[in-house]
Amino acid sequence: MSPRRRPVLALDIGGTKMAAALVDPGGRVGRSRRVPTPHGPRADSASLWRILTRLIGSLVDDDVSIGGVGVGCGGPMTWPAGEVSPLNIPAWRGFPLRARLAELFPKAPVRVHNDAVCVAVGEHWRGAGRGVHNLLGMVISTGVGGGLVLGNRLVDGASGNAGHIGHVVVDPDGPDCACGGRGCLEAVASGPRLAVWAQEQGWHAATGNSARELADDAARGHEVAIRALERAGTALGVAIASATHLCDLDVVAIGGGLSQAGPLLLDPLEQAFRRHARMDFARDVRVVPAELGQQAGLVGAAALVLCGERYWSV
Amino acid sequence: MSPRRRPVLALDIGGTKMAAALVDPGGRVGRSRRVPTPHGPRADSASLWRILTRLIGSLVDDDVSIGGVGVGCGGPMTWPAGEVSPLNIPAWRGFPLRARLAELFPKAPVRVHNDAVCVAVGEHWRGAGRGVHNLLGMVISTGVGGGLVLGNRLVDGASGNAGHIGHVVVDPDGPDCACGGRGCLEAVASGPRLAVWAQEQGWHAATGNSARELADDAARGHEVAIRALERAGTALGVAIASATHLCDLDVVAIGGGLSQAGPLLLDPLEQAFRRHARMDFARDVRVVPAELGQQAGLVGAAALVLCGERYWSV
Repeated sequence: MSPRRRPVLALDIGGTKMAAALVDPGGRVGRSRRVPTPHGPRADSASLWRILTRLIGSLVDDDVSIGGVGVGCGGPMTWPAGEVSPLNIPAWRGFPLRARLAELFPKAPVRVHNDAVCVAVGEHWRGAGRGVHNLLGMVISTGVGGGLVLGNRLVDGASGNAGHIGHVVVDPDGPDCACGGRGCLEAVASGPRLAVWAQEQGWHAATGNSARELADDAARGHEVAIRALERAGTALGVAIASATHLCDLDVVAIGGGLSQAGPLLLDPLEQAFRRHARMDFARDVRVVPAELGQQAGLVGAAALVLCGERYWSV
Repeated sequence: MSPRRRPVLALDIGGTKMAAALVDPGGRVGRSRRVPTPHGPRADSASLWRILTRLIGSLVDDDVSIGGVGVGCGGPMTWPAGEVSPLNIPAWRGFPLRARLAELFPKAPVRVHNDAVCVAVGEHWRGAGRGVHNLLGMVISTGVGGGLVLGNRLVDGASGNAGHIGHVVVDPDGPDCACGGRGCLEAVASGPRLAVWAQEQGWHAATGNSARELADDAARGHEVAIRALERAGTALGVAIASATHLCDLDVVAIGGGLSQAGPLLLDPLEQAFRRHARMDFARDVRVVPAELGQQAGLVGAAALVLCGERYWSV
């Protein structure tokens, strides 16, 4: 098979699961596998790597059959070196993921980027941002992450960290953020922070997955849950307005678990966005749901390899 | 003279003055002239154009002697078409500046961009951002404007309007902004808005140029004037923190009249910035004064023509 027609091995590595897939040069996801990310005392760095290599081995025999390896991994990481220290995978601290994968596949390009960046890239290449040149892709979930495509190219920034919309300030006197700052979007609108706020207002979570439960309760008309989603949506709208004015975007694509809450989150978001994004040039920007769902990160990871310099110019 | 060695005609057109200069391929400003921008009932569109052509004629005979024309003009404008409607030049509404200049110089490239964008480009090419790949250049004056260079290229955005840091939201419940939004940086930290706030707190302006006077009074220890600059500096620090997290910047270069207030503005700015820009990758960003002063806009306008695709890729 000519190198240009070979599929790419795409990996999506997070605190909940590790996924692998073969993605063809057109961006279609072929064979794929996923395993839960192991946690606990026996899940050390080496065992995680073993589980990942076994996952890979179930899809790929050697590096002749693939055109490269693209990886989205939870941050932080050094970039482009790809030494990863995912917040939600404590066993990996400074783990040389890119170098290890390059040893497995010595003849293939290996590229590692932030998982939220890969989601944004996937949505730009084959999702809600197809054909536009300026996109902010967002993931609203345990955190609030994102990636920026401007002038039809991925923006990496000085250290590969461009796209951190979750740490745009939406209220300078607002709640403390895990980053050490104050009033960041993530401190208001992430799933866990949203649930904490609702609990302070008298809402009670029955199970562990409280953000999902909060969304369900809001859908059933629970007043505090509805107000919690309004509050998060408003903060999201403010941050997106700021990003739109700063970057002159075409499309903002919103994905991640919490975005499943639908209009109860997205209507207040749109209202706050339109209230604050008032420059003439901001009128045409479209704020839309992401289209690729769970596959966005894999498609974007593959695009790091498949799309020339558009998403990887190091 | 070989085309590559020819100087470029640079124009900087705003509500206060129109400036023209010959800028050599190394970015040095040679012969230059400026005239006050005429206002009032006799300053119609045609007479403005006559004055501009006379200004140009005092420096350039024909289009053989120059390598092109680069223009920074007050916004808004259509881009890249260069039909300009500068807020502070009411006589020009949809004036086809780029097309008119192209008629004057039919053999030379003519490029028109926002004046604040040209300041940012000038600071990136030959000023405080020399050698870095990711810069936000800001102009704090009658308004708060800016321009973004990311990955060593100017970011234009969907309509040439990227860089509008003045309309990043710093306080969602803050003062109304002229753009129709609320709590924009410009609504807090522009010279005129700053002076209005100080007057509401009991400060009195003796002359017309109240922002300059406010800075002078603060330097003399006037308490309300000092608090006004603190308030503006804090808002600037918050907006710059947001921009840093979103774009992963190397350098933020701050120019414009109000930045002359020095530490009384820049110290509170730095404090607010460090309070809010807490992600690891934001630690190394440098917030510094612009270096090129009044020449930044002219140098940046010339760079639109002189620097290949770095600042003009349309």
